[in-house]
Amino acid sequence: MFYHRKELFRPVSVGTPDPQFGQFLLEQFGGATGELTAALQYWVQSFHITDASIRDMLQDIAIEEFNHLEMVGKLIAQHTSTLDQTEVYDAPLFKMKGIGPHFVDSQGSCWTAAYINEGGNVVRDLRANIAAEAGARQTYEALLKHTTDEGTREALVHLLTREITHANMFMKALDAMGKLDDPFFGNIPPDETVDIVFNLSQGEDSRGPWNEKPFKYVAEPGPQGGFPPPPVNPDDEKGKPEGTKKVKEAAE
Amino acid sequence: MFYHRKELFRPVSVGTPDPQFGQFLLEQFGGATGELTAALQYWVQSFHITDASIRDMLQDIAIEEFNHLEMVGKLIAQHTSTLDQTEVYDAPLFKMKGIGPHFVDSQGSCWTAAYINEGGNVVRDLRANIAAEAGARQTYEALLKHTTDEGTREALVHLLTREITHANMFMKALDAMGKLDDPFFGNIPPDETVDIVFNLSQGEDSRGPWNEKPFKYVAEPGPQGGFPPPPVNPDDEKGKPEGTKKVKEAAE
Amino acid sequence: MFYHRKELFRPVSVGTPDPQFGQFLLEQFGGATGELTAALQYWVQSFHITDASIRDMLQDIAIEEFNHLEMVGKLIAQHTSTLDQTEVYDAPLFKMKGIGPHFVDSQGSCWTAAYINEGGNVVRDLRANIAAEAGARQTYEALLKHTTDEGTREALVHLLTREITHANMFMKALDAMGKLDDPFFGNIPPDETVDIVFNLSQGEDSRGPWNEKPFKYVAEPGPQGGFPPPPVNPDDEKGKPEGTKKVKEAAE
Amino acid sequence: MFYHRKELFRPVSVGTPDPQFGQFLLEQFGGATGELTAALQYWVQSFHITDASIRDMLQDIAIEEFNHLEMVGKLIAQHTSTLDQTEVYDAPLFKMKGIGPHFVDSQGSCWTAAYINEGGNVVRDLRANIAAEAGARQTYEALLKHTTDEGTREALVHLLTREITHANMFMKALDAMGKLDDPFFGNIPPDETVDIVFNLSQGEDSRGPWNEKPFKYVAEPGPQGGFPPPPVNPDDEKGKPEGTKKVKEAAE
Amino acid sequence: MFYHRKELFRPVSVGTPDPQFGQFLLEQFGGATGELTAALQYWVQSFHITDASIRDMLQDIAIEEFNHLEMVGKLIAQHTSTLDQTEVYDAPLFKMKGIGPHFVDSQGSCWTAAYINEGGNVVRDLRANIAAEAGARQTYEALLKHTTDEGTREALVHLLTREITHANMFMKALDAMGKLDDPFFGNIPPDETVDIVFNLSQGEDSRGPWNEKPFKYVAEPGPQGGFPPPPVNPDDEKGKPEGTKKVKEAAE
Amino acid sequence: MFYHRKELFRPVSVGTPDPQFGQFLLEQFGGATGELTAALQYWVQSFHITDASIRDMLQDIAIEEFNHLEMVGKLIAQHTSTLDQTEVYDAPLFKMKGIGPHFVDSQGSCWTAAYINEGGNVVRDLRANIAAEAGARQTYEALLKHTTDEGTREALVHLLTREITHANMFMKALDAMGKLDDPFFGNIPPDETVDIVFNLSQGEDSRGPWNEKPFKYVAEPGPQGGFPPPPVNPDDEKGKPEGTKKVKEAAE
Repeated sequence: MFYHRKELFRPVSVGTPDPQFGQFLLEQFGGATGELTAALQYWVQSFHITDASIRDMLQDIAIEEFNHLEMVGKLIAQHTSTLDQTEVYDAPLFKMKGIGPHFVDSQGSCWTAAYINEGGNVVRDLRANIAAEAGARQTYEALLKHTTDEGTREALVHLLTREITHANMFMKALDAMGKLDDPFFGNIPPDETVDIVFNLSQGEDSRGPWNEKPFKYVAEPGPQGGFPPPPVNPDDEKGKPEGTKKVKEAAE
Repeated sequence: MFYHRKELFRPVSVGTPDPQFGQFLLEQFGGATGELTAALQYWVQSFHITDASIRDMLQDIAIEEFNHLEMVGKLIAQHTSTLDQTEVYDAPLFKMKGIGPHFVDSQGSCWTAAYINEGGNVVRDLRANIAAEAGARQTYEALLKHTTDEGTREALVHLLTREITHANMFMKALDAMGKLDDPFFGNIPPDETVDIVFNLSQGEDSRGPWNEKPFKYVAEPGPQGGFPPPPVNPDDEKGKPEGTKKVKEAAE
Repeated sequence: MFYHRKELFRPVSVGTPDPQFGQFLLEQFGGATGELTAALQYWVQSFHITDASIRDMLQDIAIEEFNHLEMVGKLIAQHTSTLDQTEVYDAPLFKMKGIGPHFVDSQGSCWTAAYINEGGNVVRDLRANIAAEAGARQTYEALLKHTTDEGTREALVHLLTREITHANMFMKALDAMGKLDDPFFGNIPPDETVDIVFNLSQGEDSRGPWNEKPFKYVAEPGPQGGFPPPPVNPDDEKGKPEGTKKVKEAAE
Repeated sequence: MFYHRKELFRPVSVGTPDPQFGQFLLEQFGGATGELTAALQYWVQSFHITDASIRDMLQDIAIEEFNHLEMVGKLIAQHTSTLDQTEVYDAPLFKMKGIGPHFVDSQGSCWTAAYINEGGNVVRDLRANIAAEAGARQTYEALLKHTTDEGTREALVHLLTREITHANMFMKALDAMGKLDDPFFGNIPPDETVDIVFNLSQGEDSRGPWNEKPFKYVAEPGPQGGFPPPPVNPDDEKGKPEGTKKVKEAAE
Repeated sequence: MFYHRKELFRPVSVGTPDPQFGQFLLEQFGGATGELTAALQYWVQSFHITDASIRDMLQDIAIEEFNHLEMVGKLIAQHTSTLDQTEVYDAPLFKMKGIGPHFVDSQGSCWTAAYINEGGNVVRDLRANIAAEAGARQTYEALLKHTTDEGTREALVHLLTREITHANMFMKALDAMGKLDDPFFGNIPPDETVDIVFNLSQGEDSRGPWNEKPFKYVAEPGPQGGFPPPPVNPDDEKGKPEGTKKVKEAAE
Repeated sequence: MFYHRKELFRPVSVGTPDPQFGQFLLEQFGGATGELTAALQYWVQSFHITDASIRDMLQDIAIEEFNHLEMVGKLIAQHTSTLDQTEVYDAPLFKMKGIGPHFVDSQGSCWTAAYINEGGNVVRDLRANIAAEAGARQTYEALLKHTTDEGTREALVHLLTREITHANMFMKALDAMGKLDDPFFGNIPPDETVDIVFNLSQGEDSRGPWNEKPFKYVAEPGPQGGFPPPPVNPDDEKGKPEGTKKVKEAAE
């Protein structure tokens, strides 16, 4: 069960409103790497995760991400509070859709659940979460490069910090399962190619520990699957004997 | 520069075509966890990754994923090769769109680049890739549960195996950078809350190494941000003094 | 600030799990008329609504919708708890994506913020909310037609009931502003056509109070805008004098 | 059956073309609140509405909205008629896609049928339509704030006016059914909670007629659903007894 | 200006309603190859086409496509008129969303303007239209394979016929401009490679008039662009000298 | 099987980086008319085309389009290589998402497979491909209008040239099948209306060879389908006898 208090989780205090920066902030409200993605991803995972303690962690962090979403929303609300004194060409998104946050990214694209990565297995979920945290952190750094407003910076550094904390927690959970540095999980044993690496992009090759021993490096991989059978397509002009002939003739 | 040979990377040989299973396979052709997502994600990362050896790895694996995409496509082509002998209610997607693969998932939703997670920083990218591999592996396991066709199974086990190999390679690369078990990356130092964990979902709490010492556990977190200022919205009925009064009166 | 307790807002107790019905339930978890749409729509409105009491109502109801989303999620989790004993053809979505809820609708389409209707003005928002409640209620009735499971029905009737309550609250708020039965709001006075209705679909006309007096009914409306000027398009073949001539000649 | 005449429904005469304003106008051509949404929503409803007179009204208004769509398209065509004399940075969308209207919004996002709200029941549909009109009116007001071109303003004021007229018609239709101020519709009787309101967002509470008597106000709502049963997920690492143990051990 | 009469353009008379077939028909109402795509594509082109006679043709055909859309909608309405006597598992889309047409395809995906291909130049537009007609015709043939209902078949054959007529008209228009068999259009002269064809997919090569003389066939194309410069990415861990060193060391 | 070499297919050498122009270039990387659309469309067609020589052509061209995609990506990478010295307001997309290409268009919308047109029949596919080439060529011309950078221009002219070559090849293939100027294909004979053209948009009519003899021109088309039966909708308020009466009464 969700509750809400009108006070904020952490302070949000914009000094000088800047609607253009408000538009960039949408990236973390309704964008791919934003707080809505994180909140919904972790929370929906909690419905199928069987380990009680990991489920609890996911719920704890999901709720914190909802609080972060609220903070980002308040940042945007404050940055658009002087919208009336802004040129329309400087903030067309808010001029069209109104002040405050909307569930679109900084380019005006609607948030979509296609951003969410989850399902079926706790290892898969935790790996997806570490990736989500890395994306969010990267966008906060991008935002921090473009504002000098002290109150905004303080809030953004806090939000960036918490992504590191969450990544740390997810890593600890994977580590507890022995899955932080073990690529294998699930029920299907791999086949004999599991240690092979293929040099499929050639020229000025540059290697590293990911394709050196004990990996088996195939420098010049070739096709091992032979020519596949041609398609059988009764709807195709060419699927009909006469049609094929016609092309042959025409080609002569 | 891309080249192509018409032979397949690895054998694909369906014994008994099953268009319904063909539709499930679309999940790995045009679905979120599918080979197109992996191929394009790793390849697009290679345009901004500065380390030559990691860039090479990304290109090697991206090309392999294109080869996997081709294999999945051939599996679907073979599974739909007897479509004409199938009831329309058993394979409506192929009946409407024709035999062979299409860039939609098993539910008929178009592939979207919203599935891709990349940008800006190699650590973020590699973490996204480990997550992508985990999702792909999970879907291959789901598919393997639902086919007994030997040729199909062999191809799917190979594809699942390679996801493990790739995850291993990405882990090795992160490890070489000291970032496999270090949540921090980038240029912004975290604030003082980096070790705090908040118990935001309460009741039957169940803990683990991710919120025990050395983490500082806040059992009953409360709001520290105070009440935010109310919105200023000149477009709102309530933003205008008279309007507000009218509501007040009406509410009496 | 958001809080969460692991107990549910209201009981959710499925008697006989039915994954196919679970798929229908997705319509209210990740579908257009679902609880996520309502929760996010009302909550995001609260960032720009200036009247404190209406803002409070929006937040109260938004949080309740999050609680409903959780209940629908738990219904889906319970209906898919026996997925392993289900034929893949009967629940392909869950077979591919795993048990429990996902942010897709009953057809497998990802949730999108395009479902949300909000912005700029409290009257617009409240009218959007009454519409959202009506859509949600309609889908709950559709779902209730297709399950006889007592525990499921009890939860669904409750959820349907609350949509009526919320619609009632939004109506009361509009009424307090004098806007429940007054089509006008905002700052722009209408032009002289505000009372005219046009009979633009003709044949077997059937009228009602919406196009009878005091409306002015135009039975045979005609164009009053004249012929618009032709496009000027320098990129068009036909935008170039020679090009135009060529067509003329060729057509002779 | 549709007919068309090349004259416009109402005059559209732009004085000074402004491609940047043309881009804003896309919001009402291919945007969420635009004329395409309204035209298609009302028209598609007419296929399932059983009352002949309401069906007729929906068709009349739908056709008018097609005429409005044409007017907005002509406004955009005229505003982009001098595109060649415009800096690319001032109108990149039209520079890439060509002059005239396109079915995207002012941010360049494709129109999607996810904007449409309709189905099943006339009350639901009419409430959705009042909401659609309110959204359209709001966007027209936003546009009117940002142009001083007299011909443009005249057209926009007319379009805004007609949204009010349509809202009025939909209200009259709902009123004729007794559903303008009655939240209830459909076939399912509500449960006993229909008069309860929950104070789920707390702190600086501010109330109104929507949560005062005769509503029953629950000031401190608590969970009444108990702890839900844990998920059963055979695909999860933690769903397997050994897996669970491993985590337990690792956590010690 | 649009007008509408309630009589249909052509007869639509379903003998035996079949909601499952109704769902397939959605492909031509709200699907990629459907009538909405055609109607909106041709109509929106008419806003930027400068040749009056081609513009007129586009408007004539666009309006006919709106009439076809109405016919398909009526087919769907009739096929779902007995929905109440249908098992939910046989028509879940209509059971959730109500009887009659909706702007989704046969897989339940919302129509999107991404299906539309238009802009800038009449030759480009006409070629897009021939492609659109071919897609629509193909889907009508697919639908005709799966119904024996006489009234449905008659309507579908008519709709398929008209796609051929429209394709013929578009071909005639291109031919009048000399662009039916001339690949060149626009203002940019091609470079010297315009007659070269590259054999980039090798093995079991099979040729035709599209890569025989006078084309110049390059049997073994190789890279002519050299190695591109490495990316410069200050946000990347590897973009920083120290970072690079760390990887080098770690890899040793 | 795919291979890759790190050298480029053709030279890409930007003289003066311009991140704003880099954003326009995204239109051909992740946009509707871009190289990804072409590459995936032709390649996916090759899975169902039965004629070996046309299948080979599709694969040859598809691989070339992948090479073009790589070239466009490198152009974008070079144009964003000085991003750090650019004002955030001049390149917000790259500032948020990082340097180099991303699979979005110039407006920031994610690439979607809805852009792809293919399926079922070789004639339909080839027509779709000619349309795709025309769209790509048009966008390259638009881009060429807005850069004076010599290296960029050279690459863009080459890419534009190749679209003409490919269009030529597809035309040759259709011509070999007798389908370049024959609108008919497939298995369903048209009905008797195939030569009729309808004047559905009236006023200032302007005709051409597409609606002159031998076409039969219907100057004043009228409805031939009569009034359709009213909908039967048990979920509708108006579907119930009492409901209908209530409206009737209210309307009096």
